[in-house]
Amino acid sequence: MAEAPGSVGIVAPQTAQFEQGLELACGRRLPRFELIYECYGELNRERSNAVLICHALSGHHHAAGYHNEDERKPGWWDDCIGPGKAIDTNRFHVVSLNNIGGCHGSTGPRSINPETGRVYGPDFPSLRARDWVNSQAMLSDLLGIEQWAAVIGGSLGGMQAMRWALSYPKRVRHCVVIAAALKLSAQNIAFNELARQAILSDPDYQAGHYLDGESIPRKGLALARMIGHITYLSDDAMAEKFGRELRSGTFDQGSESRVEFQVESYLRHQGSVFSENFDANTYLLMTRALDYFDLAREYGDDPVAAFSQAIASFMVISFSSDWRFSSQRSREIVNALIAAGREVSYAEIEADQGHDAFLLPIPRYRDVLSAYMQRVGDGG
Amino acid sequence: MAEAPGSVGIVAPQTAQFEQGLELACGRRLPRFELIYECYGELNRERSNAVLICHALSGHHHAAGYHNEDERKPGWWDDCIGPGKAIDTNRFHVVSLNNIGGCHGSTGPRSINPETGRVYGPDFPSLRARDWVNSQAMLSDLLGIEQWAAVIGGSLGGMQAMRWALSYPKRVRHCVVIAAALKLSAQNIAFNELARQAILSDPDYQAGHYLDGESIPRKGLALARMIGHITYLSDDAMAEKFGRELRSGTFDQGSESRVEFQVESYLRHQGSVFSENFDANTYLLMTRALDYFDLAREYGDDPVAAFSQAIASFMVISFSSDWRFSSQRSREIVNALIAAGREVSYAEIEADQGHDAFLLPIPRYRDVLSAYMQRVGDGG
Repeated sequence: MAEAPGSVGIVAPQTAQFEQGLELACGRRLPRFELIYECYGELNRERSNAVLICHALSGHHHAAGYHNEDERKPGWWDDCIGPGKAIDTNRFHVVSLNNIGGCHGSTGPRSINPETGRVYGPDFPSLRARDWVNSQAMLSDLLGIEQWAAVIGGSLGGMQAMRWALSYPKRVRHCVVIAAALKLSAQNIAFNELARQAILSDPDYQAGHYLDGESIPRKGLALARMIGHITYLSDDAMAEKFGRELRSGTFDQGSESRVEFQVESYLRHQGSVFSENFDANTYLLMTRALDYFDLAREYGDDPVAAFSQAIASFMVISFSSDWRFSSQRSREIVNALIAAGREVSYAEIEADQGHDAFLLPIPRYRDVLSAYMQRVGDGG
Repeated sequence: MAEAPGSVGIVAPQTAQFEQGLELACGRRLPRFELIYECYGELNRERSNAVLICHALSGHHHAAGYHNEDERKPGWWDDCIGPGKAIDTNRFHVVSLNNIGGCHGSTGPRSINPETGRVYGPDFPSLRARDWVNSQAMLSDLLGIEQWAAVIGGSLGGMQAMRWALSYPKRVRHCVVIAAALKLSAQNIAFNELARQAILSDPDYQAGHYLDGESIPRKGLALARMIGHITYLSDDAMAEKFGRELRSGTFDQGSESRVEFQVESYLRHQGSVFSENFDANTYLLMTRALDYFDLAREYGDDPVAAFSQAIASFMVISFSSDWRFSSQRSREIVNALIAAGREVSYAEIEADQGHDAFLLPIPRYRDVLSAYMQRVGDGG
């Protein structure tokens, strides 16, 4: 797999140490921290071809390639990152990191708080998208990248990309915002709250100190993941994927056997897998950061005033069946950018897969992203 | 309140005993059982003005009026049932019952199984919509109602109304189907499965035998209710109701206070109230019956063949922002009825309130229902 054409092949994550710590938006200070990241493709002499990938809720630094020969699945955005792909590693030096607060190697709730010598757990400070952007800027400094050719992200990653364009206008040449929004709707917040309550209601959550004990809140995390799975897919996508197919049981008259639909066992399986691989405190932190995100809040709730801070050119992409971050939300971004006099391209991709579409190999999506990245690479 | 114009006033529930039991679709037999019901308005001499109300997932027999002077809220469909209202108790004799499997007085998981002398709990037999219809037919016999002027229901109640028209064609003159579907979509099943898993994951569920102990699965039930609340409302309705209003906390830079959105506390409150008033085993039973429902299954999956069994005239109503039982699903019902040569009226009501709209006082909805019921009352 690692030697397949278009693959970046075997990659090794690296870790950066930041002894200086970071002042957070919540007012607390994160002491000494680490960021784990991966790079694909060579940085050019002018250091002008670097692309930053910001991850979404459950993402991490491993966006492309394989960690070893035995790894069966490549990084989460391998469809778009690699030699000859939309984000072409023959042209770009791609950097992908795990955000602080994460659970895949960067400093997060599972890490030791150097000030107490104990695991952070639920005491990890609350985070905002801007904290991630600030920590990513520190990583940029360390890597000697003064300006990103592009900052790219989907969903929560797209929100970070927009925040980059406001917080560090000169450091972002292009900003690619996929399936995102200026802020969450009440419905979005409600689904996130549901997921949080599922975790908090699990007695194994132990007020967040589950790592001190034997158990982890598997059931709560599994429920949270199920909520994500249902709402990140469209009704049509679920119908196509599962219909009302039975996995077991029968509808025959007189039968007592338990009828179970495919979609039920799929959701239970996905929830169960996720609960073994993700940290509950990270999930709470990440969904909170999503809920808090409101790009224009400090600009008098005026997104035009907000985007007036930006210098970057923007590419905004949405998906027709995405009902959690609908095309309407993307058009609000586009309209504000136009009103602010910014350069912006917009594409709504026809796709049945709902919000999940941003991670999937959809030809028109790849073509649109590829064409835009050509322009980025040509210095456009 | 009970003396307000348009109110049926103080009503007293009645209980009917069925010593003969009921053969269920699952093959098991429900022994001796009870149905609790209420009646509003007089039955005429011809016994031709009776209307049956079928309730939805969390509904019950108390559809209109007040149980006593101190009751603050009237029955769940008081907006539509009463003298001079859409379902006019000056013209109709309205019967509303709690279904078997329920938790408001009819035989259900909280009842004693007469064959064992112990509470049914999780051993209550699994139910289908047709079981409810069959038990309602037994109640009709007891009340001496040979034919209903109309069988009316919203959501799961609409599914029972359709089943009535197929199972007992001659006993239904009009069938009013509101915010329903021929069968659930995979997404609908997924949301129901999520709610079930929330209950089953609660350690207080105790494999369904929680009534034997001290605790009830409050947290699981509360989560299940939250899922319902979010998905029965539209995105727009939530935005209008809550926006991103804060209940507590502040977004000021440097603040550590916990930001909490209105929608979060609302959901937690609603979930908590529900968990005190509803039975977890009933919730599991009811959502299963919803998932199993498939009107045309035994007719070769052909809804036209199914509706060819019916004699009734139909009124189908849907709501523009209902995304769990969308207008598209209602149009499938209407199209099949037309193809089957049945008489059918259809109205899509413009409403922002999502699936919940069927319970709300929406003027055009009341007008449409009222006009149709006029026709029913005139013997049309």
